[in-house]
Amino acid sequence: MIVTLLTDYGHDDDFVGVCHGVIASIAADARIIDLTHGIPRGDVRHGALTLRNALSYMPSGVHVAVVDPQVGTERRAVAARCHDGRLLVGPDNGLLSLAWEQAGGVELAVDVTRSPHRLEPVSATFHGRDVFAPVAAHLAAGAELADAGEPLDPGSLAGVELPEPRREEDGALVAHVLTVDRFGNVTLDVSHESLAGTGLTLGGEVDLETGGEGFIATYATTFADVAPGELLVYEDAYRMLAVAINRGDARNALDLTRDAELRLRPR
Amino acid sequence: MIVTLLTDYGHDDDFVGVCHGVIASIAADARIIDLTHGIPRGDVRHGALTLRNALSYMPSGVHVAVVDPQVGTERRAVAARCHDGRLLVGPDNGLLSLAWEQAGGVELAVDVTRSPHRLEPVSATFHGRDVFAPVAAHLAAGAELADAGEPLDPGSLAGVELPEPRREEDGALVAHVLTVDRFGNVTLDVSHESLAGTGLTLGGEVDLETGGEGFIATYATTFADVAPGELLVYEDAYRMLAVAINRGDARNALDLTRDAELRLRPR
Amino acid sequence: MIVTLLTDYGHDDDFVGVCHGVIASIAADARIIDLTHGIPRGDVRHGALTLRNALSYMPSGVHVAVVDPQVGTERRAVAARCHDGRLLVGPDNGLLSLAWEQAGGVELAVDVTRSPHRLEPVSATFHGRDVFAPVAAHLAAGAELADAGEPLDPGSLAGVELPEPRREEDGALVAHVLTVDRFGNVTLDVSHESLAGTGLTLGGEVDLETGGEGFIATYATTFADVAPGELLVYEDAYRMLAVAINRGDARNALDLTRDAELRLRPR
Repeated sequence: MIVTLLTDYGHDDDFVGVCHGVIASIAADARIIDLTHGIPRGDVRHGALTLRNALSYMPSGVHVAVVDPQVGTERRAVAARCHDGRLLVGPDNGLLSLAWEQAGGVELAVDVTRSPHRLEPVSATFHGRDVFAPVAAHLAAGAELADAGEPLDPGSLAGVELPEPRREEDGALVAHVLTVDRFGNVTLDVSHESLAGTGLTLGGEVDLETGGEGFIATYATTFADVAPGELLVYEDAYRMLAVAINRGDARNALDLTRDAELRLRPR
Repeated sequence: MIVTLLTDYGHDDDFVGVCHGVIASIAADARIIDLTHGIPRGDVRHGALTLRNALSYMPSGVHVAVVDPQVGTERRAVAARCHDGRLLVGPDNGLLSLAWEQAGGVELAVDVTRSPHRLEPVSATFHGRDVFAPVAAHLAAGAELADAGEPLDPGSLAGVELPEPRREEDGALVAHVLTVDRFGNVTLDVSHESLAGTGLTLGGEVDLETGGEGFIATYATTFADVAPGELLVYEDAYRMLAVAINRGDARNALDLTRDAELRLRPR
Repeated sequence: MIVTLLTDYGHDDDFVGVCHGVIASIAADARIIDLTHGIPRGDVRHGALTLRNALSYMPSGVHVAVVDPQVGTERRAVAARCHDGRLLVGPDNGLLSLAWEQAGGVELAVDVTRSPHRLEPVSATFHGRDVFAPVAAHLAAGAELADAGEPLDPGSLAGVELPEPRREEDGALVAHVLTVDRFGNVTLDVSHESLAGTGLTLGGEVDLETGGEGFIATYATTFADVAPGELLVYEDAYRMLAVAINRGDARNALDLTRDAELRLRPR
């Protein structure tokens, strides 16, 4: 069975490798896919969005996510089965919530904080190794979800808050920065569907305003539709509205941070 | 069957993980080797050189490369079988050209831009996920190359331009920076064979000149043959002439960028 | 069989991918676990500590480590079987020493510098590819250790030096920085056992002094036990004394480098 991993562990240390070792020790035949370990440290929402977007491209299996600033405190550790059969494992801090919404909701959930599958002694700071990886490995090896922990009311699971775009009186769309990728391409909180809902039609040149500064972008299909160094607004690979600079870095050029507001208006 | 991946996607985002998921969903038994995802953004030539160098160390299989600044435009997406049996998949921008030259040339090539194996809807910006990974996975699972796209004249495939070293009248060898690795070690455009062809014999101390500045290096076999902090000129692991600093960073010390000229002359 | 890899190669280049290819070419069924490739360049001690800590979480197999500033010189390349059955492969510079100590000591060791398993021609700078990976792959595929090289006296294998904490007359504990992770969390040279041996009891507030500057930390179980931005002293996941800042970077805040001294005293 497939086990996917998404964390904010990065690749500088042995955190990821140790989780692989724990899984391979328990479930020798499990195939592990590293979804990403580059989630910005502690950014639960970024992790939740990435997991949701990527999940439909993964074979069904056990999907582990660890972005866990409250590790070692009273926050619960959970494992859940979605209505589409996927199993999710991680901290109960909203990280898994967008994934299970997309996967048809939670059918069964258990609190694995004191799971019989844990590695003893459980450290206070590395539950990826001591709780999440071994629980996931036992599930991948065929253990029953109900045996992995204490039953839990799915309605009590934590969610995650997302900003929402709005239309202003002058017709501008006010959007927010959700995530930024390694190229400096910026995803906004405007899906293909929500853009249609605003009634706004983008095309040709677009006025962008953020932090009191104005920019001109072109609404385009792909990066190379504009000259190198020029701004574009486009629908990204997950059908979200996004801002980029062809061969450049839009985040830096527009000095954008998480949740920053951007006003967009057709010229 | 083996599928190897080489891209400029980096490890901060889920790009690589999603490609793994797509391949595993189609070809559950394919083994994936990440050749590297650290090619400098959009540097097609660096990708082409790395693929060529690494290929002979890989088991024969399907070799995917994606460094694709023109993604979503009219540039073709291609799959090709080399005379040694290896299959190459990627954009037709020269990225694959050094690999197939080394692999005996192209026996059969197809345009996979509108391949039946694509994931629909195809995004404009993430053909790694929507075109190259699924095409490669189907090939790895046994699909016929001829069924993966439209036939293509191998003679029409794009190449890549490389600088060439030259001897000057004063006997100096003028070389160029091809690539730099993460340690700041600098590979020049002088192969073991082409160095022999110049008639220049290196040994002992070497005068280096670049950007109007002069340096003294030692021609050596390996890093620790010179003291920490000292410059060496050596034959690197792919038998190319290279410049390094033992335990230091030659790129920074000599302020070198891609294609920069270096004059070398025995002292 | 499992092959684990630990290096300072990073992920920018094809070094790691090429080693995977070499192993897969020789031992098609070997499963490779990347323990980490993020060891700071040339930091043999950091590599030795990481390998020791991680090893007990790995399935037993062939464990390759390459942090090798003396590559290509007279330093030996070795392969060794520990009393617990694990096989270690790497340069004889102390990198493997903490691992085999923990694995019950060395039962049999061979010098693989001129191993019949090497890839010819052996480069002077990339023994990961030409010596260590192929030797490990042949061992993983069932080759006898004794056939991999020349017999070696285990007593002649290199060790690694570690700093030692001490109590001062005023009761303070003087510790040293062993390693720092990507979050800036700092591991000191004080194990759970050695702390008990000092007779010092930590709890509540702790005075920290380093580089002539003083700080106040809280002895806590986990990061979120203190407010964001505050210092804590805690037992890390490998039961070593460590210093961190909740959601911050203790290395930067305290301006710590490898081997830096820290004085700790209960308030």
